[in-house]
Amino acid sequence: MTEFDPKDMEYRFLGNTGLRVSVLSYGGWLTVTDDSEKITKECFEEAWKHGVNFFDTAEVYANGECETVFGKVFKDLGWTRSDYVVSTKLYFGFGEKSPNGRGLSRKHLMEGMDKSLKRLQMDYVDIVFAHRPDREGVPMEEVVRAFTQIIQDGKALYWGTSEWSSFEIEHAHHIATKFGLIPPIAEQPEYSMLKRDRFEAEYYPLYQLYKYGTTVWSPLAGGILTGKYNDGYPAGTRYGDASSPVVKRNRSKWESPEGKAMIEKVKQLKSVAEELGCTTAQLALAFLLKNPNVSTIITGSTKVDQVKENMVALQVYRKLTDEHVENIEKILNNKPDYLKLY
Amino acid sequence: MTEFDPKDMEYRFLGNTGLRVSVLSYGGWLTVTDDSEKITKECFEEAWKHGVNFFDTAEVYANGECETVFGKVFKDLGWTRSDYVVSTKLYFGFGEKSPNGRGLSRKHLMEGMDKSLKRLQMDYVDIVFAHRPDREGVPMEEVVRAFTQIIQDGKALYWGTSEWSSFEIEHAHHIATKFGLIPPIAEQPEYSMLKRDRFEAEYYPLYQLYKYGTTVWSPLAGGILTGKYNDGYPAGTRYGDASSPVVKRNRSKWESPEGKAMIEKVKQLKSVAEELGCTTAQLALAFLLKNPNVSTIITGSTKVDQVKENMVALQVYRKLTDEHVENIEKILNNKPDYLKLY
Amino acid sequence: MTEFDPKDMEYRFLGNTGLRVSVLSYGGWLTVTDDSEKITKECFEEAWKHGVNFFDTAEVYANGECETVFGKVFKDLGWTRSDYVVSTKLYFGFGEKSPNGRGLSRKHLMEGMDKSLKRLQMDYVDIVFAHRPDREGVPMEEVVRAFTQIIQDGKALYWGTSEWSSFEIEHAHHIATKFGLIPPIAEQPEYSMLKRDRFEAEYYPLYQLYKYGTTVWSPLAGGILTGKYNDGYPAGTRYGDASSPVVKRNRSKWESPEGKAMIEKVKQLKSVAEELGCTTAQLALAFLLKNPNVSTIITGSTKVDQVKENMVALQVYRKLTDEHVENIEKILNNKPDYLKLY
Amino acid sequence: MTEFDPKDMEYRFLGNTGLRVSVLSYGGWLTVTDDSEKITKECFEEAWKHGVNFFDTAEVYANGECETVFGKVFKDLGWTRSDYVVSTKLYFGFGEKSPNGRGLSRKHLMEGMDKSLKRLQMDYVDIVFAHRPDREGVPMEEVVRAFTQIIQDGKALYWGTSEWSSFEIEHAHHIATKFGLIPPIAEQPEYSMLKRDRFEAEYYPLYQLYKYGTTVWSPLAGGILTGKYNDGYPAGTRYGDASSPVVKRNRSKWESPEGKAMIEKVKQLKSVAEELGCTTAQLALAFLLKNPNVSTIITGSTKVDQVKENMVALQVYRKLTDEHVENIEKILNNKPDYLKLY
Repeated sequence: MTEFDPKDMEYRFLGNTGLRVSVLSYGGWLTVTDDSEKITKECFEEAWKHGVNFFDTAEVYANGECETVFGKVFKDLGWTRSDYVVSTKLYFGFGEKSPNGRGLSRKHLMEGMDKSLKRLQMDYVDIVFAHRPDREGVPMEEVVRAFTQIIQDGKALYWGTSEWSSFEIEHAHHIATKFGLIPPIAEQPEYSMLKRDRFEAEYYPLYQLYKYGTTVWSPLAGGILTGKYNDGYPAGTRYGDASSPVVKRNRSKWESPEGKAMIEKVKQLKSVAEELGCTTAQLALAFLLKNPNVSTIITGSTKVDQVKENMVALQVYRKLTDEHVENIEKILNNKPDYLKLY
Repeated sequence: MTEFDPKDMEYRFLGNTGLRVSVLSYGGWLTVTDDSEKITKECFEEAWKHGVNFFDTAEVYANGECETVFGKVFKDLGWTRSDYVVSTKLYFGFGEKSPNGRGLSRKHLMEGMDKSLKRLQMDYVDIVFAHRPDREGVPMEEVVRAFTQIIQDGKALYWGTSEWSSFEIEHAHHIATKFGLIPPIAEQPEYSMLKRDRFEAEYYPLYQLYKYGTTVWSPLAGGILTGKYNDGYPAGTRYGDASSPVVKRNRSKWESPEGKAMIEKVKQLKSVAEELGCTTAQLALAFLLKNPNVSTIITGSTKVDQVKENMVALQVYRKLTDEHVENIEKILNNKPDYLKLY
Repeated sequence: MTEFDPKDMEYRFLGNTGLRVSVLSYGGWLTVTDDSEKITKECFEEAWKHGVNFFDTAEVYANGECETVFGKVFKDLGWTRSDYVVSTKLYFGFGEKSPNGRGLSRKHLMEGMDKSLKRLQMDYVDIVFAHRPDREGVPMEEVVRAFTQIIQDGKALYWGTSEWSSFEIEHAHHIATKFGLIPPIAEQPEYSMLKRDRFEAEYYPLYQLYKYGTTVWSPLAGGILTGKYNDGYPAGTRYGDASSPVVKRNRSKWESPEGKAMIEKVKQLKSVAEELGCTTAQLALAFLLKNPNVSTIITGSTKVDQVKENMVALQVYRKLTDEHVENIEKILNNKPDYLKLY
Repeated sequence: MTEFDPKDMEYRFLGNTGLRVSVLSYGGWLTVTDDSEKITKECFEEAWKHGVNFFDTAEVYANGECETVFGKVFKDLGWTRSDYVVSTKLYFGFGEKSPNGRGLSRKHLMEGMDKSLKRLQMDYVDIVFAHRPDREGVPMEEVVRAFTQIIQDGKALYWGTSEWSSFEIEHAHHIATKFGLIPPIAEQPEYSMLKRDRFEAEYYPLYQLYKYGTTVWSPLAGGILTGKYNDGYPAGTRYGDASSPVVKRNRSKWESPEGKAMIEKVKQLKSVAEELGCTTAQLALAFLLKNPNVSTIITGSTKVDQVKENMVALQVYRKLTDEHVENIEKILNNKPDYLKLY
């Protein structure tokens, strides 16, 4: 068993809580393969060596298989429970055609929580997220009551939101105030150099009012910020197989005038990265780390080498001067203005 | 004195209140002329004849002069106070360089309310609106406390918002719940056939949660929906004088690809209007009246004839079938989807 | 009448309110003379020219005479009420041997408020402070209820504390929460380069929790920070007359080892001031302005020239670099540490 | 099994609760030895014979070993659970480099509580204390929510504070009021004849407002009040080994002018003790027992004889007249004044 050693990792409070998470964290995967357990274990160990203490998954990832593998790996590694932080996310269910098999009804939240814990072989997760808002009619009171009960039952220490609008997050706080329930403490939002409006502007008052925490996903904008699509879609990459409908949709997005403009920016970022002696991906992570409203960036990877490479972002972030940031802002030219957005 | 007669006007509750407002109402003007008092009186009388019972103004309109003239006209006409509904709006102050001369601080709200009432020669208005959100740092608790006190002091019966985001309106409700204060009951939003997203999608949950009321302004999209700019900018119209910077800005908006597409839609609407034997403007008002979340449409005009013409929209609205609406929707092709917008 | 012009003054929100006060403000005097009215008017006008919009007094200053003169001068000057901010402070009463003639009982607060407003010839002050905590037995509930009623009666817009402990301020907030009353929004504390513990350490959590505002008094530590006592007590200065018991007490304070060490620091500050081309007093004010938890510094003076000189502190503050501050901190060597103080 | 017999012990309510604790209680030890279990059992039995019913430990004492031994001894002795009161304290964790391994985050409190109970082999403790305030950023709402849940989960009957400032204790009460949670009921403070300010003055309003309880530690001021350091540091005593840095630090404290003055007082107290036929240590305990705001004094000792000797303090306290107290106060000359302290 590798004992936990924070080394030179940076830890931040997850929003207005006393829970400390490493600013770079490790996220679960969407597709399962024969050696998922072996690879996951290796990636966990590599991340652990760098001081990563936060691991994120979801019921829907690989239809529950991701949680199952996470559970086995945690057990196998035998780490002290207080040394690491685990989160999962409920909403999508999986493979269930039943009308109550997904969403944020009390029924799905209570049943889904128990199923997740069973797969994870844990008594509790540290954070449980509502993986999406439920706009099909479930009242917010039901949602906040269910999460409050999950916490009071000892099955989670905190609850959060994922991809909710600022209106919905504020409404959840309103309902918590009204009924004396427990409000959510963090959002798991998409945020990257190329997608900033919601994170930086729409959520701005939430940081002011609640010191709302954030566990960022897709920090590399689906891989575009690695620069690997700067000159087309190499075979073997995510967008390499043009026959898949998902790939088609994404390619057409990147080939639109807006998409091309973004790729142009990525190319320019490359020269800043080179100056700093790092990859565009590392620069993209480092830039987000400069934002104090980022609690942690969830990096996903199923290769040990990539885990290692991601961790270098921490060094880059420490080297990033105000001047670098200014140059990057000039290239991006997409800094949102809270006062004007509305 | 003309006694009030509802005739064939339609009255709707202003949101979740017991206050009934005519679905077509009369709004104050921004510029004062020598005969403002005379014209305003004539317009009031014309509207009154059609059953209009709601008159809207603001401290900032013509730097207080609009309120002053409204006050004189109401006094002159001698109508029974319970027959009509008056609203004003606080935020902008006027002519004051003083740091506390505008905004939503308790100081400006209390002082501004008293000044408005003095100009209006009234003990109270029916509704006072926050003419804008104050994003420069005044806490929502202060805003809601001040409006609550204004109501408890008997200076207004209700308070509302104008051009607030749904987040801000929900935050005001949260604060009212938290401290046992009085929440706002209606929004004064911009809404027209050509600008629908905020009204129909962003505010959608507010209608569900609070039956939030609305007093619509700019229902003709700055005049474009009259069709008078279908073929350029005639002299004597609002956009006729190309030397004014405001006009220049607006013209360039209408001459952009998006602007041209809108004017194209207005042209197509004209044929629907002709079929119904009405003007495009009347059709534009009638279409909004079909939306049950519209409490009232504020029509502004400083010509008696135009007041008369606006009132015809009520007849058009009553003739508008589902089939007409469907045709209009096809032409507009801009129906927002709440579920997708976020 | 001199119209208000903010010029290059800086305005800050008074804590977590929407009320903006000039960072340098003008405070009332403790002793009345024959030409108090004339001098006060001249000082008001001088301050006004520099953009000062906040004027502070107290019932006890010159046994009510300060309020009376302030009232006359405001009336005489005819300034627009929304352009300026007035505060007064209740607690000490004056000249009253009656058991209920002072303190924070509801009786004294309600009676004292009305008397102050009468002397000031105003309907309301912007802020009313509790000039001291009342530790003789009046329950906090009574205090918070009385100030809440004063505000709801329209006699003040906000209430604050003066020389309260952080415990007492937190207790007032607790009581306000418990009974749905209005909490205090700012403290009027003694704060200077030579007296920092309470302001910077004891109150620290209040800035975090409530963004509590501050209207600083005695920023020159009773004159010592002017440097005029660096070499004894010149005749004509506050401590010049050795026959007064107050002077004796103060002299012995400054002649103690601690007092001498402080005077030594003041001498060293003089060289920093000279480098910046300003007086020690101006440097002392400028240093406080660098603290973002200072809402405003109340400068007291009954000489027009001194008002003028005080205003220069604003320029000094704008010139003060991090390096200057660092040098000053080395000289002062009294920076309090919140974490260690308790 | 020795049946419980209150004999002539005095029991006091622990603050504003229905829980009765013996005024002299027994506290856990910081260092473990081979015969810790045997000695602890003997001391427990001796205390028990005198009617002691309250036993205090902490997760950090001897890195969890103190709890483990307490657990074994309680099991071994087989006393009826309702006859005794056990408290533990959470905050410091032990041996964990992990960012979440200590402090007052919900994570550490929930995990720490479970670990403590496992070591103690108990389903619940009577009182759990927050061993320190957490000033590194954990919000009070999180702390009070976690302790409330620990109580509602049946893992503790009450919660308390240790070495918190009066501000922090009041803030905890505020948060409990605000969210309908359970407030702390007692403080575990350092208090002795030589350290009185916080206990007697700072906490004074807490006794008035909440009848706040106290479980005093270090009543002999680290042994100085035994008088054994009156003439230097004998070998074999805590401060006997001059090579230890802790000892050096403490020695230099006692050798400062203030330290010497204190030892002088201890010498004078000896004559009062002799007059009463007791030791200085017994007098020191008896003097504290005269303070009705003391709920219990935690006496620590790992020698049966010393337990016996401590118990004599109860007799001394009963003999202590007002005149004795007056004499002691003259010697101590350090009675704090609540009204002047702030």
